[in-house]
Amino acid sequence: MTTANIGVVGLAVMGSNLARNLASREGNTVAVFNRTYARTQELLDEHGDAGFVAAETIDDFVASLAKPRTAIIMVQAGKGTDAVIEQLAERFEPGDIIVDGGNANFLDTIRRERELRERGLNFVGTGISGGEEGALKGPSIMPGGSDEAWETLGPILRSIAAVAPDGEPCVTHVGTDGAGHFVKMVHNGIEYADMQLIAEAYDLLRRVGGASVPELVDVFRSWNEGDLESYLIEITAEVLGQQDAATGGPLVDSILDEAGSKGTGVWTVQNALGLGVPVSGIGEAVFARAVSSKPEQRAAVRGTVTSRPERPEVPDRFADDVRAALYASKVVAYAQGFDLIVAGAKEYGWEIDLGAIAKIWRAGCIIRARFLDRITDAYTGDPGLISLLADPYFADAVATGQAAWRRVVATAVTAGVPAPGFSSALAYYDSLASERLPAALIQGQRDFFGAHTYHRVDREGVFHTLWSDDRREIETEPSTH
Amino acid sequence: MTTANIGVVGLAVMGSNLARNLASREGNTVAVFNRTYARTQELLDEHGDAGFVAAETIDDFVASLAKPRTAIIMVQAGKGTDAVIEQLAERFEPGDIIVDGGNANFLDTIRRERELRERGLNFVGTGISGGEEGALKGPSIMPGGSDEAWETLGPILRSIAAVAPDGEPCVTHVGTDGAGHFVKMVHNGIEYADMQLIAEAYDLLRRVGGASVPELVDVFRSWNEGDLESYLIEITAEVLGQQDAATGGPLVDSILDEAGSKGTGVWTVQNALGLGVPVSGIGEAVFARAVSSKPEQRAAVRGTVTSRPERPEVPDRFADDVRAALYASKVVAYAQGFDLIVAGAKEYGWEIDLGAIAKIWRAGCIIRARFLDRITDAYTGDPGLISLLADPYFADAVATGQAAWRRVVATAVTAGVPAPGFSSALAYYDSLASERLPAALIQGQRDFFGAHTYHRVDREGVFHTLWSDDRREIETEPSTH
Repeated sequence: MTTANIGVVGLAVMGSNLARNLASREGNTVAVFNRTYARTQELLDEHGDAGFVAAETIDDFVASLAKPRTAIIMVQAGKGTDAVIEQLAERFEPGDIIVDGGNANFLDTIRRERELRERGLNFVGTGISGGEEGALKGPSIMPGGSDEAWETLGPILRSIAAVAPDGEPCVTHVGTDGAGHFVKMVHNGIEYADMQLIAEAYDLLRRVGGASVPELVDVFRSWNEGDLESYLIEITAEVLGQQDAATGGPLVDSILDEAGSKGTGVWTVQNALGLGVPVSGIGEAVFARAVSSKPEQRAAVRGTVTSRPERPEVPDRFADDVRAALYASKVVAYAQGFDLIVAGAKEYGWEIDLGAIAKIWRAGCIIRARFLDRITDAYTGDPGLISLLADPYFADAVATGQAAWRRVVATAVTAGVPAPGFSSALAYYDSLASERLPAALIQGQRDFFGAHTYHRVDREGVFHTLWSDDRREIETEPSTH
Repeated sequence: MTTANIGVVGLAVMGSNLARNLASREGNTVAVFNRTYARTQELLDEHGDAGFVAAETIDDFVASLAKPRTAIIMVQAGKGTDAVIEQLAERFEPGDIIVDGGNANFLDTIRRERELRERGLNFVGTGISGGEEGALKGPSIMPGGSDEAWETLGPILRSIAAVAPDGEPCVTHVGTDGAGHFVKMVHNGIEYADMQLIAEAYDLLRRVGGASVPELVDVFRSWNEGDLESYLIEITAEVLGQQDAATGGPLVDSILDEAGSKGTGVWTVQNALGLGVPVSGIGEAVFARAVSSKPEQRAAVRGTVTSRPERPEVPDRFADDVRAALYASKVVAYAQGFDLIVAGAKEYGWEIDLGAIAKIWRAGCIIRARFLDRITDAYTGDPGLISLLADPYFADAVATGQAAWRRVVATAVTAGVPAPGFSSALAYYDSLASERLPAALIQGQRDFFGAHTYHRVDREGVFHTLWSDDRREIETEPSTH
């Protein structure tokens, strides 16, 4: 009976790769277990030299772990996770640590942490971003859970995390219970927004700018040399550069234009709605995928459209304008995402260091990008920063780009090319920048039809106009209906 | 012991008004009960001639009802509702009918209906729209529940509902269990979108068009004579026409521009996200209210903005353009709302007649509008209509207005006046009208970083490119991770 300092349960691609990553780091001995042993055998056959401690039964697996026992569950999120947790919990002892590395809903993580804490066990829900390759070579890791668990788990996770350009491992103790999975959810939401914005840039350059796909490969490659440098821009150039063997043309033209999703974008927006945080960029991205995936509806509406705008002349320096619009819109998407983290922390009682979150997203994860250094600086310099758009650097960057941003959105709407992400981000910026909003009229309407009351600009109190009476204004109590 | 054919529990403003409405119709004898009798006494003192059967205890109330006993609960949505339901359920007999007329979440209504059905009782969740005045004079009523309950309840609700211009009462049996509250939720979501669009029109006419508030009163009054004729346009003119006694200026300028909400807009978007229905217009409306209600954030960002666009010259015929943009955007909001009803009906097993829904919204409710006649025609003519935008009348209306719509959105973004509702609606339209969407690129990205697979335009099957290998394309199974 060997003693391993860490175990992995669930050896599908993500679990296997994470186990291999763990085993490759000095100081780790990795126990592995899978429901069907064949999968474990396969891992041993292919990577037996990694020195895994393979268990055929869950009892053997638990017995092979040194105390405090620490096991990372890498199974599909949902009921399967609860079953595996229970198998471990029945065998673990007080102080042992169960880690869920799947894409769990943070509310499940909060529940599981509470239930296991009552049984004396540590439960850590952790976000792991970077896909299969990240799991193997170094992901960005977002663990929640207790300080006690972090003491044991921290060094192990640090050993396998991606390393940022400045040498820091991309992992931090995000906060208690569900904080890690919450932040991972927001990460994925931002990823949706980022991908939608890139897709809009591509579409505009092609449909308005008249660029060919090979030309666009060069455009995205050159963008990846500047402020926009990021994994998603990099792989956009790769995807656009891919030739389709069947047609000889660009692969992107052979891919069906119906975008799928796995649900974390939906969760992000649903939670933001509940918390009153406007994440319109993520919302439009999720909705854009939904629109795309309704081919019958698209065909029916397209069939009724009798006139479409003509393609306008290509504006001067259009690619530069689109780059500026993309950058500004991206800043808005991140500003909204970080606002959601602030609201979640407040609601669920987490102390989250926003600068540390930006830091651990700098490498390993899908949204890794050069400008996360700037976001790190912004939140490190002012941990209570009320909006990323109020940070001097970003305020200036967006102000500088706004003329181009406006030109691009105006061109898109004139040309009939949908740019919901760009235009929604700009509307959000203009809303924050406006001295007065027409929300005052909405309050007047609500008071008129539902006696919902309003506040005044010139004095404290709650007011109601007797609209169906003599239209006097009275001071009153806030409406409860 | 008198026998009433209908009872009302909960005599706050909505309940009292509904009871008075019921009592005013021939054939109804209305039992009334309130937790504190003082409120009941107040109703009797003020409207004793209505002939109410007042009960001091819940037992007396139940005893005063003829069989099948039928009671409408009008208490604040939430736990209070469950308590009142239980009080009635303990005393009711098989076949009796409990009606919840509050703004319940339809999922609660589904649960309650099931629980009471198992006890042999009928439970009907019903949406009631029209505010306090509607409750008194004739609301639009959206009941769910069983056919058996509808047989008794139908004639009673028909007697108190608003009457459309063609003489038809604005009530229909929407569907089983939670169907009524679901449709009421969507009604409220559309109301959010409609109000946001009107607010944007007002803001643009003022900030870009340079119109004074008194001039805008005339604009909205004239709009209320045409296609846009609706309760919300009508009350917009009323609100804008209201003078503030304190300042002598327009009241709207004294109202704090931070919009509140009661949650049904949030529910609508959350459910739409879960069902995969893009309700971007409602989403942007909910988010616009959220942005407005964060004064510290607005002030901080505004404080960093160094340059703002100058007010452009007023475009020719700007008010006409804004009217066209408002109409087209409104069609989109309704199209999205009706899509959500279709998706909800499919998910929860309701048979909902969309034409009948449009019909009962023509009077009594907040979103009543002339163009609901057109929507009624569209869905009556083609009950399976796949999108309101595919209906010939609306397709033509939107196509005709699109040039103006594009000019307005382009002007708004150029001028820095936020128009998230207009621009999001236009982007949705352009997405449906586009031959190809950049969702193909998104699928390529997802396949690259997460092996999420894609479909091809030219043949069936599920495909994956071996991006980190030799980049061959393989046919595979759909990704499950």
